[in-house]
Amino acid sequence: MSSTAGQVIRCKAAVAWEAGKPLVMEEVEVAPPQAMEVRVKILFTALCHTDVYFWEAKGQTPLFPRIFGHEAGGIVESVGTGVTDLKPGDHVLPVFTGECKECRHCKSEESNMCDLLRINTDRGVMLNDGKSRFTIKGKPIYHFVGTSTFSEYTVVHVGCLAKINPAAPLDKVCILSCGISTGLGATLNVAKPKKGSTVAIFGLGAVGLAAAEGARLSGASRIIGVDLNSNKFNEAKKFGVTEFVNPKDHKKPVQEVIAEMTNGGVDRSVECTGSINAMISAFECVHDGWGVAVLVGVPNKDDSFKTHPVNFLNERTLKGTFFGNYKPRSDLPAVVEKYMNKELELEKFITHEVPFSEINKAFDYMLNGESLRCIIRMGA
Amino acid sequence: MSSTAGQVIRCKAAVAWEAGKPLVMEEVEVAPPQAMEVRVKILFTALCHTDVYFWEAKGQTPLFPRIFGHEAGGIVESVGTGVTDLKPGDHVLPVFTGECKECRHCKSEESNMCDLLRINTDRGVMLNDGKSRFTIKGKPIYHFVGTSTFSEYTVVHVGCLAKINPAAPLDKVCILSCGISTGLGATLNVAKPKKGSTVAIFGLGAVGLAAAEGARLSGASRIIGVDLNSNKFNEAKKFGVTEFVNPKDHKKPVQEVIAEMTNGGVDRSVECTGSINAMISAFECVHDGWGVAVLVGVPNKDDSFKTHPVNFLNERTLKGTFFGNYKPRSDLPAVVEKYMNKELELEKFITHEVPFSEINKAFDYMLNGESLRCIIRMGA
Repeated sequence: MSSTAGQVIRCKAAVAWEAGKPLVMEEVEVAPPQAMEVRVKILFTALCHTDVYFWEAKGQTPLFPRIFGHEAGGIVESVGTGVTDLKPGDHVLPVFTGECKECRHCKSEESNMCDLLRINTDRGVMLNDGKSRFTIKGKPIYHFVGTSTFSEYTVVHVGCLAKINPAAPLDKVCILSCGISTGLGATLNVAKPKKGSTVAIFGLGAVGLAAAEGARLSGASRIIGVDLNSNKFNEAKKFGVTEFVNPKDHKKPVQEVIAEMTNGGVDRSVECTGSINAMISAFECVHDGWGVAVLVGVPNKDDSFKTHPVNFLNERTLKGTFFGNYKPRSDLPAVVEKYMNKELELEKFITHEVPFSEINKAFDYMLNGESLRCIIRMGA
Repeated sequence: MSSTAGQVIRCKAAVAWEAGKPLVMEEVEVAPPQAMEVRVKILFTALCHTDVYFWEAKGQTPLFPRIFGHEAGGIVESVGTGVTDLKPGDHVLPVFTGECKECRHCKSEESNMCDLLRINTDRGVMLNDGKSRFTIKGKPIYHFVGTSTFSEYTVVHVGCLAKINPAAPLDKVCILSCGISTGLGATLNVAKPKKGSTVAIFGLGAVGLAAAEGARLSGASRIIGVDLNSNKFNEAKKFGVTEFVNPKDHKKPVQEVIAEMTNGGVDRSVECTGSINAMISAFECVHDGWGVAVLVGVPNKDDSFKTHPVNFLNERTLKGTFFGNYKPRSDLPAVVEKYMNKELELEKFITHEVPFSEINKAFDYMLNGESLRCIIRMGA
């Protein structure tokens, strides 16, 4: 039992006071964990587009002040009542969506969309009492997707924490909390390309490159990257991408370009941009008879997916995935082991690193399109 | 070797001289089979909607005079050069789509859309020489989907013939040539409901009822039939349908009605109408996290499938199927065995029977919506 258990902890956190304004380093009070909650000392966190999206808060109901952050690695400081799966000292990855292990989704082999702990971007409080565990001089600061890892300590529902191998370096595996697992799982768990197959990846950001990494791990013979920015191809080669298509370079739809390159279409495609046109292209570029397209990118509210139904009848499959179909608690430990076994390469995703005090630089790197992942070292 | 081998056979055939006009019983000459072809004595045939659709020839390039028919059972009379898989006396089911066993589709475990012998409704001739094997006083009569079973003898590519157990009664298993296998396979091979699951079937014609039969065989706990004609529910109960929804009885979209009946959606759905609205409903009525919808019905040329992409991202899957994903030669013999083992019930699909001379009655029964399947006895 740590000496801080049961006590309020005062620590540093990067607080977003207003939409789009730089985060401010503040001293916050972090309350002890309540029933089924765990207080975690965050050692490393990373920045993901979703943080930036909700920080910019365009077209959303803004919820401020708030502590963002949801890709991270840390160590359990203390646990609330009812928590039996974790104890102080355990190494954990907080995850923005959870696994209660009790609901129909958790009991289904096919779903990871837990009824209790499914991502909720509008909720800024804990489930147990509808309140925040963060305060500044008594004034509550909202949580973000149940993780709020831009704080030296945070409180997370036990169902949103994956217990991992303590030998795993947290400054690397922390990026498995969100984007990298999302792309990797989309390929490994949903698209499931066979050895020797052809795979198209739409969007060569971190998620798309993780999807390509999944295709590389699966032994795909050709991995075709599709992006509107041709500069991305060079970086993408490290992730196994063998060919590149920029839709801007062609007069015909990119699905036709890909069909010509592949004698009728790719075996699998993974869409990681969220653009509705890319979704339609990703579906229509898979081969009839066996092609499977997987949607990962989050679309706009008013988008409509349109295609001729014969594209389905010719034995194409379209699926969507959420967090790469990984169940956070059950499946992430094995993904960490894939890294430990040197099967999965994570270092190439980490392009930048900053101390916690310079967290706003991580936002700049992402907004300028310079970074894939920027690791933020806490306690520095 | 039969005495007719290598000779032209004169026999009766029901010829469609003009679109929409009653078939006329004629004496036709049936040429011997050429390379990779087989001449088959048809004993029983049945009428399927696809025959009627191309006989009506609305909105198509008409191809007449033609011999329709593609659900049938017969016995091999003689074989052309290169045919090693079949010999005179073998019992066969002709199929409107084939399996060459050489192309990428045939070699793929996932596809049954043979490049060489995939259905072609526009072609009225044999592949080998681009000519018909049927003539009347020397004037060629067109084939239909490579089968033309409304004739006492027909010539079929060896790749379009499934060799079956000779003990199987051809007057029953002939209906496995098309519609019944299409619906059955859509459920068993593509939707794959688990024991105890909920399944919605859109369209309670023969194909939809075969899909329901597949759900029954899979041990589905609830089978919800959806049809605009409430009279169909009574018949559908025989096929395992446990509940019925008529979209006309509800103000809200049928997908919402089904979601309310099933606490969020069915586990699987199978669409057998071809209506674009039914396709969208069939997709949107499956449960998030694990729901799979399968499209079977053939849409109109200008239809567009539209849905919000979030319906996919919430882990729903949409697939289409062709002939229930069965490979005709490899898979149909085992479907026949399912009937022989009394697992699959075929008798309930057979509502009418007529002698060949009264084949036009079969068209009337279907056009009046009276029949599921009408067996036509040849040589009578």
